[in-house]
Amino acid sequence: MIRAGVVGASGYAGGELLRLLLGHPRVEVIQATSQSSMGKFLHQVHPHLRGRTTLRFISPDALQPCDVLFLALPHGEAQTHIEQYTALAGTIIDLSADFRLRDPAAYAAAYGNHAAPDWLPRFAYGLPEINRPALRETRFASGVGCNAAATILALRAVRDAGWLDVSQPIIADVKVGSSEAGSNPGESSHHPARAGVVRPFQLTGHRHEAEIRQAFASSGPLDVRLSVTSVEMVRGVSAAVHVTLPPGLAERDLWNAYRATWNGEPFVRIVHEKTGIHRHPEPRLLAGTNYADVGWEYDPASGRAVLLCALDNLGKGAAGTAVQCMNLMYGFEETSGLSFGGFYP
Amino acid sequence: MIRAGVVGASGYAGGELLRLLLGHPRVEVIQATSQSSMGKFLHQVHPHLRGRTTLRFISPDALQPCDVLFLALPHGEAQTHIEQYTALAGTIIDLSADFRLRDPAAYAAAYGNHAAPDWLPRFAYGLPEINRPALRETRFASGVGCNAAATILALRAVRDAGWLDVSQPIIADVKVGSSEAGSNPGESSHHPARAGVVRPFQLTGHRHEAEIRQAFASSGPLDVRLSVTSVEMVRGVSAAVHVTLPPGLAERDLWNAYRATWNGEPFVRIVHEKTGIHRHPEPRLLAGTNYADVGWEYDPASGRAVLLCALDNLGKGAAGTAVQCMNLMYGFEETSGLSFGGFYP
Amino acid sequence: MIRAGVVGASGYAGGELLRLLLGHPRVEVIQATSQSSMGKFLHQVHPHLRGRTTLRFISPDALQPCDVLFLALPHGEAQTHIEQYTALAGTIIDLSADFRLRDPAAYAAAYGNHAAPDWLPRFAYGLPEINRPALRETRFASGVGCNAAATILALRAVRDAGWLDVSQPIIADVKVGSSEAGSNPGESSHHPARAGVVRPFQLTGHRHEAEIRQAFASSGPLDVRLSVTSVEMVRGVSAAVHVTLPPGLAERDLWNAYRATWNGEPFVRIVHEKTGIHRHPEPRLLAGTNYADVGWEYDPASGRAVLLCALDNLGKGAAGTAVQCMNLMYGFEETSGLSFGGFYP
Amino acid sequence: MIRAGVVGASGYAGGELLRLLLGHPRVEVIQATSQSSMGKFLHQVHPHLRGRTTLRFISPDALQPCDVLFLALPHGEAQTHIEQYTALAGTIIDLSADFRLRDPAAYAAAYGNHAAPDWLPRFAYGLPEINRPALRETRFASGVGCNAAATILALRAVRDAGWLDVSQPIIADVKVGSSEAGSNPGESSHHPARAGVVRPFQLTGHRHEAEIRQAFASSGPLDVRLSVTSVEMVRGVSAAVHVTLPPGLAERDLWNAYRATWNGEPFVRIVHEKTGIHRHPEPRLLAGTNYADVGWEYDPASGRAVLLCALDNLGKGAAGTAVQCMNLMYGFEETSGLSFGGFYP
Repeated sequence: MIRAGVVGASGYAGGELLRLLLGHPRVEVIQATSQSSMGKFLHQVHPHLRGRTTLRFISPDALQPCDVLFLALPHGEAQTHIEQYTALAGTIIDLSADFRLRDPAAYAAAYGNHAAPDWLPRFAYGLPEINRPALRETRFASGVGCNAAATILALRAVRDAGWLDVSQPIIADVKVGSSEAGSNPGESSHHPARAGVVRPFQLTGHRHEAEIRQAFASSGPLDVRLSVTSVEMVRGVSAAVHVTLPPGLAERDLWNAYRATWNGEPFVRIVHEKTGIHRHPEPRLLAGTNYADVGWEYDPASGRAVLLCALDNLGKGAAGTAVQCMNLMYGFEETSGLSFGGFYP
Repeated sequence: MIRAGVVGASGYAGGELLRLLLGHPRVEVIQATSQSSMGKFLHQVHPHLRGRTTLRFISPDALQPCDVLFLALPHGEAQTHIEQYTALAGTIIDLSADFRLRDPAAYAAAYGNHAAPDWLPRFAYGLPEINRPALRETRFASGVGCNAAATILALRAVRDAGWLDVSQPIIADVKVGSSEAGSNPGESSHHPARAGVVRPFQLTGHRHEAEIRQAFASSGPLDVRLSVTSVEMVRGVSAAVHVTLPPGLAERDLWNAYRATWNGEPFVRIVHEKTGIHRHPEPRLLAGTNYADVGWEYDPASGRAVLLCALDNLGKGAAGTAVQCMNLMYGFEETSGLSFGGFYP
Repeated sequence: MIRAGVVGASGYAGGELLRLLLGHPRVEVIQATSQSSMGKFLHQVHPHLRGRTTLRFISPDALQPCDVLFLALPHGEAQTHIEQYTALAGTIIDLSADFRLRDPAAYAAAYGNHAAPDWLPRFAYGLPEINRPALRETRFASGVGCNAAATILALRAVRDAGWLDVSQPIIADVKVGSSEAGSNPGESSHHPARAGVVRPFQLTGHRHEAEIRQAFASSGPLDVRLSVTSVEMVRGVSAAVHVTLPPGLAERDLWNAYRATWNGEPFVRIVHEKTGIHRHPEPRLLAGTNYADVGWEYDPASGRAVLLCALDNLGKGAAGTAVQCMNLMYGFEETSGLSFGGFYP
Repeated sequence: MIRAGVVGASGYAGGELLRLLLGHPRVEVIQATSQSSMGKFLHQVHPHLRGRTTLRFISPDALQPCDVLFLALPHGEAQTHIEQYTALAGTIIDLSADFRLRDPAAYAAAYGNHAAPDWLPRFAYGLPEINRPALRETRFASGVGCNAAATILALRAVRDAGWLDVSQPIIADVKVGSSEAGSNPGESSHHPARAGVVRPFQLTGHRHEAEIRQAFASSGPLDVRLSVTSVEMVRGVSAAVHVTLPPGLAERDLWNAYRATWNGEPFVRIVHEKTGIHRHPEPRLLAGTNYADVGWEYDPASGRAVLLCALDNLGKGAAGTAVQCMNLMYGFEETSGLSFGGFYP
C-alpha cells in the first residue's frame, strides 16, 4: 500500500480522484486538502463518498509527507508551490494545465508566464496511450486537457498510419458537458440558463490546441482548430475531427490502422459498427469510466473522414488518467482501481 | 394604450412580464428598472427580447409616473416602498408574496412582520379564477404563489362540489422546475448539481400553505400539507393533491363537478382522457402560456382521488396571471396579450 | 381569409403548421388529413392544440378543394400525388424534400428517381431569405431542409461578401434535437437510449449537402461537408460552419458583411456579443419561433472563422418558413402569424 | 465459482444483471438467452458490456444446466415455465412480479390468475433488508417491485418503531425514470414526447400496493396509496411517503428509530442533513449502485412526516437486489460484486 494525498480535493476532479483512490487496492488515502471546506467530512462535499470514508478535509497547511501527492488545484497554483509539494512527496501527479507543455515558450503563448519553467521538462505528459515509456520512468506526471486528450486520441491512428496532411486545417469540433467548467456556480452554469443549450463556448484560439500540437510535433506543425460547444450533459467529451485522407483508402485500411494503433490498449475501445444506435463512440456510456472510445466515419469517394473520440472529462480526461499514470509510475497493474466499465441505460 | 412600468425587471418573472406586455395590444411599456443591470438593453439580460424592444433598464430612482406599475421584486421589498409606488401609478400589480395574504396575523406567521400591514386588505388576491369580481373593482392586485395557485386550482372543483373533508389531511405533492428558484446562481442551481435530480426541496411547513388555506377559508380550516420537490425541468409546476372523496361518487360526478367549476374559464382546461400519453395535465405543454390544466384520477372503490393541476410557474404562476389581472382591472378582453397557447413537441 | 388544408397533418411539422395557421389572421384551416389518426380530434394527437380548434383529422380521400394545400408528408409521397393536389388547390406549399432541388440529376443523386421530375423546376425553393422574389411570383413553394437552411444562413453573409473560398472544404458541424427524426417511435428515439447522448448521426454524405450546393451554385461548386450529431434537446438546430477567410479582415469587416446581408430581414437576427452567456446564437431560445439567429467567431491572426446559425427545425426549419412563404405568395404581411418570439428561461 | 445463466437477458434488468455478474468474483456467466437477439454479441444490445465479455445471446431452447438461473422475463413468463427452469438449475432468482406475493389470492387480485400457484409459497421475497433469514435458507428468491421496495424501505424504520397508524391512508408519491418502462420503444417513451415531462403515470390502484401490504402484514392491513409519476431521468426511483406520526416525538426520536432499523445494513444509508443540497436521498447519486438511501422531513408541531427513499430501479430495485439475494443464498459476502458506489457529479 502506498500512502496518497489529494491537494485541492473539493473540486469535481478531486472528488473523482478520491472515489478512484478509495477503491484502489494498492492505495491508502491519508489526506485531502481544501481551503473552502476544511473540517468537513469528504461526503459533505462529495455526496457519492457517503459511507465510503470517514476522512475530513484538512487545511493545505496541515499536509503531511506521503508517497504520492495528487494536485487537483486551479490552473496556476501547482506551479507556484511545486517545490513545497515535491518536498512532501517523492511522486507528484498534477491534474492542472501547469505542467502539460514541455516547452516554456509554448506554455507562455498559451497560458502566460510560468512560475517554475525549469520544472516543465521534468514532468512527463500524462497520457499513457502516447507516453507510456516515459511515464514508467518518471516521478512527475502532468495532467491532460480533456478536450486535447479526446482530439489526440481521435487523430492518433490516422497519424500513426502516416495519413495526416499537416498542410491542411484539422477541424476538431468538440461537444462537452457542464462539469467541464468546474464546481463553482456562476451565471453560465445556472440551471435555468444552462439546461438544454447548444452553446458555442470557445470556437477559436482554445488553449488546448498547444497540447494537441505538442502531441503530434514529430509530424510537423499541425494547424489544429479546436472549437468547443457546451451541450446538455454533465460529464462527457465528444470530439469529431474533420480531416481529408489520402486518395485510395478503403474502410479496411482504416480498420487496420485503428487496430494497429489500439490493439492491446486497455482503455481504448474501437467503436465502429455498421448498424444500430451504438455504432459510434458515445460519452454517456463512459461516465465514471477510464475508457476512451474511438471510431470514425469515412467516405471513400471524397476521402473525407470524421474521426471520433468520446471520454469522460472527469475520468479519462482527468482523474482516471491520473490514476492510470500512478499505476505505471509504481509498476502496478495498469488497470488497477479502474475496473468500473460504465452502465446503460 | 396604457403606459406601464416594471420594477425589478431583470429577474425571470420580470422577463416574462416584459415579454407579455411588449406583445399586448393595449399596453405601452415605458420603463423597466433594475439595480444590477441599469443601462443595459433589456435583451442583454433577457435574450428572448432581442429585436423586440430598444428599451434599457433604468435605475429605480428614475421611475416616472405611469398608469400601471408591475412590481417584480424579491419578497419584502414591495411592502417597504408601497407608498412610493402608489404615488407614481394609480394601479399596482405586485408579483411577490407581499400582499397575497389579507390577514396580517397569517402573514406574520408565514413570513414575519409586514412593513405595511394596513395595505394588506387593500389588495385583491390576484388569482382571477377565484377572485374575478374583486379584481374587476380593485386598483391593487397581489401576486400568486405558483405552488399555491396549482394546489388551489387542483382542489377547486372538488371543493365547489362540497366534497372536501376538512377533517382529513390534504397532501399536495408538487413537482417544480429550476426557474422557480429565481435568476441568481448558487450551489443548488449549479447545472452539474441540479441536472437530473429529484430533490425534495421543502416537504413540510411551506409558506404557500397559508395562501391555500386563505383560498378555502370559507370551507373551514384546511389541513393542507404542501411538499415541493425539484425535478429536471426549467419551467413548470405539477401538483398532485391526494384526497378521499365521499362514498358513492362515480366518474361522471367528477366530470360534472369539473365542468360546473371550469366551464367558461378561458385559461383552465380540463385534461382527463381515458387513453394516450396526454391524458393528464403536463407542465411541459404549458411553458410560456397562461393555461392551468386540471384533471384527476379517481378510484371509485376506495374513494381515493388524486387531483391534478399543471401550470407554468412564470406564466400562470406569476406574470401571466398578473397580465390577466390587469386586463380585468382595466376592462380589457381578459385574454388580451395572453394568446400564446404553447407548442409541442 | 384564405381557406387552407394540411395533408399529412399528424406529424410534428404538421402539428406546428396547424398551430401557426390556426393563429394566422388571414387563414381559415378547413381540413387536416391523417391516415393513421382519421376521426380523432386534432388535440388528441397534438396536445398543444387543445382548446384551439374542434377540427378532426379526415382521410386523405376526403380532401376538399381549397385555396392552399400544405403537404407535410414523408419524403417521396408529395411527388407521387402532385397532380392530385394541384387539382384541389391553386397554391401548394410542400414541406418535404420532394421539390427542393431544381435539377433532376441533383435530385436523383441525393434521393433517387423522382416520380414527377417535370415539376421540379416549377417549384420555387422555399427559403425567403435567399429566394424572396421568386416566392412572390410562384404558386408552388418547396420546403427546406432544416440542416441545409441553418448552414445556408450561416454562410450567406460571408458568401455575399465574396469571401468564400470554394477550393477549400467547408465543414458544417450541425447539432440537432430529437424531433428532427419525426414522430414515429423507434429504437433510436427510445428515451432511455436517447436521453443525454451526443450521437453522431450522419457524418458524411448527408443529403442536405445538395441543397446547400444549389443555394450557392452561382459561387461555383461548393465542397460542403455536413456532419450531423444528435444532442439532448427536442427542438433545435445549431450549425457551426468552419471556414478560412481571406487575409487582412478585421472584426468590423465581418460586422459590415453581416449587416449588409441581414439588415431588414424580419426573421434573421445577428447575435454576436463580446461578453455574456448569450453572445452566440442559441437554438433553445428559438423554440416555437420563426427566427434564424446568425453569428460568428473570428480569429484575425489565422483567418479562421466559425460561422453560426441556430433555428428551430420545426419552425424556421419547416412550418414557420412554410407560412412565411405563404405570406409572400399571397402578398400578406411577411411576418403575419409568425409573431411569437420565444421565451426564456 | 458458480455457473450462472440469465434468461431474458436482452432487457434493461438483464443488462444490469450481466454487468454485475460479469464483475462478480464468485460467478462465471455461462449463458444468456434472448429470443429477439439470439446470435448477437451481448455488447451489441448492451453497449456497456463492450470489451467485458465475448458471450453471445443464445436461444432459450439452448439453455444448459447450471448452478443458478436468473429469470429476467416479462411478467407472466417465469411462472409458465418454472418447472423447466428448476429442472435446469438448483437455484432460481426471479426478477419479475411472478413470485413476489406469497398469497395466491393477493396475486390474483393484483395480477390475475397465476399459472403455478403452488410455487408462490416456495419463493422467498427477495428484499434482504426485510427477509434476510429466509433468503439464507431458500433456493428460490423472488424479485422486488422497484416502487414497492422504495416505499417499504421508506416506511420501515417508522413501522419498526411502532409509529405507523394503519387506520390512516398512507400516501406514497413516487417519481420514476424512463427505464422503469423497459427497453421496448413506444409512443410514451418516444424522446420528443417523454423528455422533460412530469407525467402522472399510475395514480391509483398500482399493483405494487399488494407487495407493500404484504411487507407490513404483521402490522395489520395497510391503506397504502401508491401514485407513480414519470419525470426526466433514465434510472431512479424517489419515494415520498406522507404519514402522521404520534404526538410528542422529537427529531432525535426519528434518528434513533432510523439507526435502530438500519445500522449495520450494508446497502441502506441514512441521508438526513440539516443543510446543503444533498440533505435528502437523491436517486441520481445511486445510478448503478445497490444502495437505498433513506431519510425524512418531520414537523414536530403537526406530527406530519414525509419519509423518503431513493434507489436505482435497475440496481437496488431489480438486478442489484437479485445479486444480493444470490450472495445470501450461497453464503458469499453479502456485498460481493456490488461494490460500485456511484459517482458525482
